[in-house]
Amino acid sequence: MSSAVHSTQEYDMDTRSLSSSHRHPQDAPYVHKVGLPPKQNLFKEFKATVKETFFADDPLRSFKDQPRSKKFILGLQAIFPILEWGRSYSFAKFRGDLIAGLTIASLCIPQDIGYAKLANLDPQYGLYSSFVPPLIYAFMGSSRDIAIGPVAVVSLLLGTLLQSEIADPVANAAEYRRLAFTATFFAGITQVTLGFLRLGFLIDFLSHAAIVGFMGGAAITIALQQLKGFLGIKKFTKKTDIVSVMHSVFASAHHGWNWQTIVMGVSLLSFLLFAKYIGKKNKKLFWVPAIAPLISVILSTFFVYITRADKDGVQIVKHIEKGINPSSVNQIYFSGDHMLKGVRIGIVAAMIALTEAIAIGRTFAAMKDYQLDGNKEMVALGTMNIVGSMTSCYVATGSFSRSAVNFMSGCQTAVSNIVMSIVVFLTLQFITPLFKYTPNAVLSAIIISAVIGLVDYDAAYLIWKIDKFDFVACMGAFFGVVFVSVEIGLLIAVSISFFKLLLQVTRPRTAILGKLPRTAVYRNILQYPEATKVPGVLIVRVDSAIYFSNSNYIKERILRWLIDEEELVNKSGQPKIQFLIVEMSPVTDIDTSGIHALEELYRSLQKREIQLILANPGPVVIDKLHASDFAQLIGEDKIFLTVANAVAACSPKLMVEVV
Amino acid sequence: MSSAVHSTQEYDMDTRSLSSSHRHPQDAPYVHKVGLPPKQNLFKEFKATVKETFFADDPLRSFKDQPRSKKFILGLQAIFPILEWGRSYSFAKFRGDLIAGLTIASLCIPQDIGYAKLANLDPQYGLYSSFVPPLIYAFMGSSRDIAIGPVAVVSLLLGTLLQSEIADPVANAAEYRRLAFTATFFAGITQVTLGFLRLGFLIDFLSHAAIVGFMGGAAITIALQQLKGFLGIKKFTKKTDIVSVMHSVFASAHHGWNWQTIVMGVSLLSFLLFAKYIGKKNKKLFWVPAIAPLISVILSTFFVYITRADKDGVQIVKHIEKGINPSSVNQIYFSGDHMLKGVRIGIVAAMIALTEAIAIGRTFAAMKDYQLDGNKEMVALGTMNIVGSMTSCYVATGSFSRSAVNFMSGCQTAVSNIVMSIVVFLTLQFITPLFKYTPNAVLSAIIISAVIGLVDYDAAYLIWKIDKFDFVACMGAFFGVVFVSVEIGLLIAVSISFFKLLLQVTRPRTAILGKLPRTAVYRNILQYPEATKVPGVLIVRVDSAIYFSNSNYIKERILRWLIDEEELVNKSGQPKIQFLIVEMSPVTDIDTSGIHALEELYRSLQKREIQLILANPGPVVIDKLHASDFAQLIGEDKIFLTVANAVAACSPKLMVEVV
Repeated sequence: MSSAVHSTQEYDMDTRSLSSSHRHPQDAPYVHKVGLPPKQNLFKEFKATVKETFFADDPLRSFKDQPRSKKFILGLQAIFPILEWGRSYSFAKFRGDLIAGLTIASLCIPQDIGYAKLANLDPQYGLYSSFVPPLIYAFMGSSRDIAIGPVAVVSLLLGTLLQSEIADPVANAAEYRRLAFTATFFAGITQVTLGFLRLGFLIDFLSHAAIVGFMGGAAITIALQQLKGFLGIKKFTKKTDIVSVMHSVFASAHHGWNWQTIVMGVSLLSFLLFAKYIGKKNKKLFWVPAIAPLISVILSTFFVYITRADKDGVQIVKHIEKGINPSSVNQIYFSGDHMLKGVRIGIVAAMIALTEAIAIGRTFAAMKDYQLDGNKEMVALGTMNIVGSMTSCYVATGSFSRSAVNFMSGCQTAVSNIVMSIVVFLTLQFITPLFKYTPNAVLSAIIISAVIGLVDYDAAYLIWKIDKFDFVACMGAFFGVVFVSVEIGLLIAVSISFFKLLLQVTRPRTAILGKLPRTAVYRNILQYPEATKVPGVLIVRVDSAIYFSNSNYIKERILRWLIDEEELVNKSGQPKIQFLIVEMSPVTDIDTSGIHALEELYRSLQKREIQLILANPGPVVIDKLHASDFAQLIGEDKIFLTVANAVAACSPKLMVEVV
Repeated sequence: MSSAVHSTQEYDMDTRSLSSSHRHPQDAPYVHKVGLPPKQNLFKEFKATVKETFFADDPLRSFKDQPRSKKFILGLQAIFPILEWGRSYSFAKFRGDLIAGLTIASLCIPQDIGYAKLANLDPQYGLYSSFVPPLIYAFMGSSRDIAIGPVAVVSLLLGTLLQSEIADPVANAAEYRRLAFTATFFAGITQVTLGFLRLGFLIDFLSHAAIVGFMGGAAITIALQQLKGFLGIKKFTKKTDIVSVMHSVFASAHHGWNWQTIVMGVSLLSFLLFAKYIGKKNKKLFWVPAIAPLISVILSTFFVYITRADKDGVQIVKHIEKGINPSSVNQIYFSGDHMLKGVRIGIVAAMIALTEAIAIGRTFAAMKDYQLDGNKEMVALGTMNIVGSMTSCYVATGSFSRSAVNFMSGCQTAVSNIVMSIVVFLTLQFITPLFKYTPNAVLSAIIISAVIGLVDYDAAYLIWKIDKFDFVACMGAFFGVVFVSVEIGLLIAVSISFFKLLLQVTRPRTAILGKLPRTAVYRNILQYPEATKVPGVLIVRVDSAIYFSNSNYIKERILRWLIDEEELVNKSGQPKIQFLIVEMSPVTDIDTSGIHALEELYRSLQKREIQLILANPGPVVIDKLHASDFAQLIGEDKIFLTVANAVAACSPKLMVEVV
């Protein structure tokens, strides 16, 4: 055992009080000891961990110390937030909600018809999904700004996944529809379960970068799919990757394109993009791009009706079932192979739908500064999809574009969703026959102009600037979706995200610290090139909890720093390294493997006659160092509150001036 | 926007030089700025990451700046370390190796015969596996103390996995054997691949706690399996769980037990355990437990031969094939369904075998203080299994018990493995017929006494003391193996280990900091109850890198700390919180999601008229804060080197004395 460093008590420490005029009267040298937190009851500790993991947002906070009757009312209000905000609802608020509701309704009707096609379903199923789910959400959801209904990405995903099970959605329409409802049902079940078990944090495992890439890729894919309607192509590939689609497009170039359709499509898309441009230029004219789709539908439908362009090959919607949602309870598969497929598809669709809805909810909640309980939102979204699956709806969630319009039109509460829902109801009851002559080209133009906003160049550029690895995840997801399929893109996104997390827990950073001139602060010498090493002392900071996954690496990395330093010292003829200080501030936890690694490190250092010293272990770590007797092994007087204290304790031994 | 804090330059900081007598002559107030590390070249950065992930141990270090011919020799020596240490091999070393080799040979022969049974193979396959693999390892391995051969846990695992594919190893002996060789071949391929691709860190994902539990459970299971030989039961269950085995044992209690076998087994086991006890009491007598098994085999064999106890129902080995390993190249399945099964089983067996061998290697390397390259070890172990699979061996690895004996007998190099291998060769050539009358009971007794050491109560107790969650993983693996099967136990162990890692990256710790009296050090108030909060300022430390998986949680957790604190402040009538200082020392990295979370936090705080201040962001973080313009958003003068600096900058504004 190397000769022990003297007790910390003997040296004048540098970390004095803030202002010297306020120092303690005796002016005695003062060293603060490393604190050992009060022993916690095992059960309490366990309870605290569980609470922090699953109830981090403390959802039962308001229930505390309330009489039973009050608890019941609070409970009801927790499930149906409308009971809470409904009591203070006013006419002023309703005016905002009415205008917002009408605006998003005008936007959602043409979008719904188009999105249903992405899911390979008849147009009315899109409208159905904008009628029942928003109503349910209005009662149970706590976001004030989200606009509920079918969305492009989920529709495409659902369509792709369903088609991989049932190859021909036209020939097997009934079976396909049944599987769609089954998937919707289990998507709802998944969402409710995640929310109820408070596993909402699982959706956080899809990184922002991966979502940007996935959404961008999906948007491109969706836009490419629209080339069918846009160019009036009749024979079109079932695949979604860019190569197949482009092949399909050019193969039909000579006799498959319809010039009337193209002229109509191009002029409508130009009109829509111009409207978008106006809305962007002048925020007050936000309603222009919002109602432009409906106007273009009305104009183009009227135009086709007058000119009977459908006889010249312009494809039209033809028929939308009239009347509101029929029941679909008995169409859901509750057993057999089809149920399993439904579960699988439902889970994937549920996760993507949740990711989108929660992201929207959080964004607008942050803007208006109100709290959103992610898990409660999931229960609301899940319930609405379960009810939806029984009333002929497919997976609905929060729509980026319509929520933004909702927000800008001045919505105040979820009542705007009710207004939208009523408009869709009236549409289904009375107006659907009028859509007969609506050209498919206008729907394609509307979808293209809607999804184009999902390709977020700025976000991708920012990701590139901030984190190159994130950018790889982003591009991986993007190209996966564009060149292979939505599923593969999603898989790539999730895998890269996960790999990054594993890297984090396997290869944590370490740093050599030096003293900043004229301070007693020790910092990474790579960040602060002016920081100076203390002769005879090597100070290493470990930047992560020490767990089994990295304990061995950390031990070997520290030894490698030491070997490098010793080589350097030998070359330059400086004093030999006698102390290794491990700065443990960032080490928030340590497990048994970590303790073993420290023990091995201690033994290796003993052989080299180097003293191991620890600086600032946290509460959990110091507790475990004592429990495992490691503190006693190296000596309790080798554990210091700060690096400066530790260096000061070494320096008399080294006979080196440390300033 | 709240009124801005003045530039840091204006205030006298607390972090003075170590000793006031050495302060800068002007005695000017001095504040060190937060360092922005020099911009790194993108390619360099990428290269550094790859190097740190896969070549953390810098295996090519010695190749640097060497002429080509020297490089070639170094390369050869890297693959065959024997070329390096062989040059300085001496007779003194050989003496140590010879004694150690003979000792482990006497231990391995009876063990091998028993272990082969665990794998449902004929006894000679155990001996084969102690002949070829140790030879290969001696040339390629770099551990000086490991003893190579079949081990109990891997034999049991292989037996269980193979039996789940081929139900009856006796009726389908040839097919079973072929699958065993196939699995061994692919286990070797797996090991070489992992080593070659430098993915050795993957085995670190099995935590120490999980291994302790798994090994303990496997030891109990193996001991229970020995009850068959020990009690002389003829009809025995094929399952390994404790319930089935006990049922089997008691069902045969009346007419299935053989009293002669029991008497013999009990007395032999007592003898072995007594020998073990002697070896433990007096370290110099380590050779007593080492040769006890061979002595008991000789004695019991002789006894059975004399008394012809086999005619009274004492089961004997009967026949061991004479001669060395036949070739088995053409028995390996290289295609079809059986190959896939072999791959699957091989991968699992390879991982467990590696875990055991690397753990042993590291332990003894640390004791004798030499370095072990995990990845190179894997290549050596893998090669030996590939060659083994072609010479009728099954998966071999490092044995805990024999390596310990090897170490204590004074082995110097891998030559002890060569000595052992030669003894096994001689045994196979000449002595196997003598094993004819060896009773199964002695083999059972030897196995029980060998595996009993794998149940590590002390380790389990230490795990309980250090980390309760680790203990759950340990017990999960233990009970999984004992009550269900080896596979399930392994699955539980891996799942719990993984879950813990995910928890780490999802729910990082945060802490409220207070000022330690008479210092300028800010620490967790839970660890240091004497630390005092600064009125009007809330200081929160985030204890983890901020990534997509936790960014949202961290943001919400900080806001919750703030709400709690504000409630407290309101009740006690203290000054309102005006500053939130986030101590970022432990935040080693941040990604785009993390930046977004900080932006959202900043906006929420702005609404509450609270100023966000950051303390000590690390090199990567400060770089990204600038790249994303977040530093400009909150103001560069809101980022400080230390918490003390930040507090000092706030305090004039607060007009509160901060001492």
